Amino acid sequence: MEKYLITGFSGFVSRFFLIYLEQNKINANVLGVDINEPNINDVSFKYVKWKFNKINLLEMEKIENVIYQFNPNYILHLASFSSVGFSWKEPVISFKNNTNIFLNLLEAVKRLKLDCRILSIGSSEQYGNYNKKYMPLKEKYKLIPLSPYAVARVSQELLSNVYVNGYGLDIVMTRSFNHIGAYQKDIFVIPSFAKQLMSIIKSKKKSGELITGDTNITRDFLDVRDVASAYYLLFKEGKRGEVYNVCSGNGYILSDIINKMADICNININIKSNPKFIRPNDNKIIVGSNEKIKKGTRWNPSISIEQSLKDILEYWKKA
Amino acid sequence: MEKYLITGFSGFVSRFFLIYLEQNKINANVLGVDINEPNINDVSFKYVKWKFNKINLLEMEKIENVIYQFNPNYILHLASFSSVGFSWKEPVISFKNNTNIFLNLLEAVKRLKLDCRILSIGSSEQYGNYNKKYMPLKEKYKLIPLSPYAVARVSQELLSNVYVNGYGLDIVMTRSFNHIGAYQKDIFVIPSFAKQLMSIIKSKKKSGELITGDTNITRDFLDVRDVASAYYLLFKEGKRGEVYNVCSGNGYILSDIINKMADICNININIKSNPKFIRPNDNKIIVGSNEKIKKGTRWNPSISIEQSLKDILEYWKKA
Repeated sequence: MEKYLITGFSGFVSRFFLIYLEQNKINANVLGVDINEPNINDVSFKYVKWKFNKINLLEMEKIENVIYQFNPNYILHLASFSSVGFSWKEPVISFKNNTNIFLNLLEAVKRLKLDCRILSIGSSEQYGNYNKKYMPLKEKYKLIPLSPYAVARVSQELLSNVYVNGYGLDIVMTRSFNHIGAYQKDIFVIPSFAKQLMSIIKSKKKSGELITGDTNITRDFLDVRDVASAYYLLFKEGKRGEVYNVCSGNGYILSDIINKMADICNININIKSNPKFIRPNDNKIIVGSNEKIKKGTRWNPSISIEQSLKDILEYWKKA
Repeated sequence: MEKYLITGFSGFVSRFFLIYLEQNKINANVLGVDINEPNINDVSFKYVKWKFNKINLLEMEKIENVIYQFNPNYILHLASFSSVGFSWKEPVISFKNNTNIFLNLLEAVKRLKLDCRILSIGSSEQYGNYNKKYMPLKEKYKLIPLSPYAVARVSQELLSNVYVNGYGLDIVMTRSFNHIGAYQKDIFVIPSFAKQLMSIIKSKKKSGELITGDTNITRDFLDVRDVASAYYLLFKEGKRGEVYNVCSGNGYILSDIINKMADICNININIKSNPKFIRPNDNKIIVGSNEKIKKGTRWNPSISIEQSLKDILEYWKKA
């Protein structure tokens, strides 16, 4: 029986990590921690046993107690205040709830001398603004973080290096690119499109208006189920102290994604760009290289963008 | 009348910054903040007026109040838990008392919309372990921080960049190398030598034993009075958003320094290396390039290593 501690248990990725374990018949004992209640009671598990503990990772002593009692083999650190926009509004809170909570977690594992592997989730935001000619972004590139959130993520990765090389902890790091999937909140771009498309359909119209930000930007979208399998395989086959991009390797222009989604729904749409949603400093293009994780593990993304979009639309149809 | 807020007011550098202002007849109003009481009542000032406020920079509201009331033109941020050794023992405390206090300070200045220049003091530790052939270290080099302290300093610099480019703050950054001078605590290497030499002299012997760590390492020592002038000139002439090495540009082998000091004292010494003082991962050589600050400002170090050592020995003679 493998024991997984998952921080940020009530977020988007955690559900799919549990489902991945279940579908692969992995007998797992999962302890989820989060400041919010989880929402996966709709999923039934046979191989996975999970329980939940509501704690704030800023409270050092509580974390240490929880980790000591559970004694995990693996820690999947998903907890994060992951909004770049929020980090600009509240940089201090963003920094504490990214870097400081991670440092608390590492320190607890170090003090307890636990023999466990930690997966530190980072972000493509760590790279900063690279020109199109440098795509796809490779792990060896210099990091030029441009937002408080991105700085917090770089700091997290630098701390990981120190805890690996200075204290002997077993940490694998990711730089994860955009994820998409059902259950993702509609503050994100793809679910926002899906929700709007569904409301056009529900109003029985064959065409309608879609409010968007800048649709000329290119992003690397990866299905959250492929994210889950990447994280599992990094636990099993990732190299200690190494950092891996987790991404599809494909760049999708947002307007193309919108057209694909409209085609699936069989409706005509009129894109209306709202300046409010356009961020002045947004990168034109972010595409990652996934060569390293593909070479270093058996991971291979298996879900096409079309399948992802269909499943997301299906989810919003019911939502 | 220029107004300076100095954090870490009770530390080593602050005294010499005030003396620099005084000697250059700069009418200055200084507010010092620190968690410890200052110790400069022995210095009399004519041009400089200073007062002290005992606050902990981790207390956000207090900082904001103090800054609001004082309304400084310049903030010299010297506050730091600057021991690398301590950071290995207490990484969480080290990180909070370096990065988080700095972030609190920036956030206060941002919220209050103050028109002031901040000097962010960083460290040569940010560079990590470069081979001899890469000396002297230049600002453009990649930062590979190897200790919790070094990570905290890199994070501080990355946050500075974000506050300059994202929020329009006026910050100049340094990477400061080893400082030496009177009043430096004897936990540091040069004052430790000076103290030991003086105790040999006071015992009326013409020779004695000096307990040291590894004396084959090379460091870039800069007199603290030259550090003070560098910080003043960076306030006046440094470029917003730029980072500057503050260093002598010269590499001194510790054993040579010891010999110079013994010569000044006119005694024979027998160096005894205590393995307890040898850090396994210590850099063999750290020398900085000061080309950038010399080109960008009128700064030029003016105190020879011999003069520094004489003054340090003189201080310990009286101490």
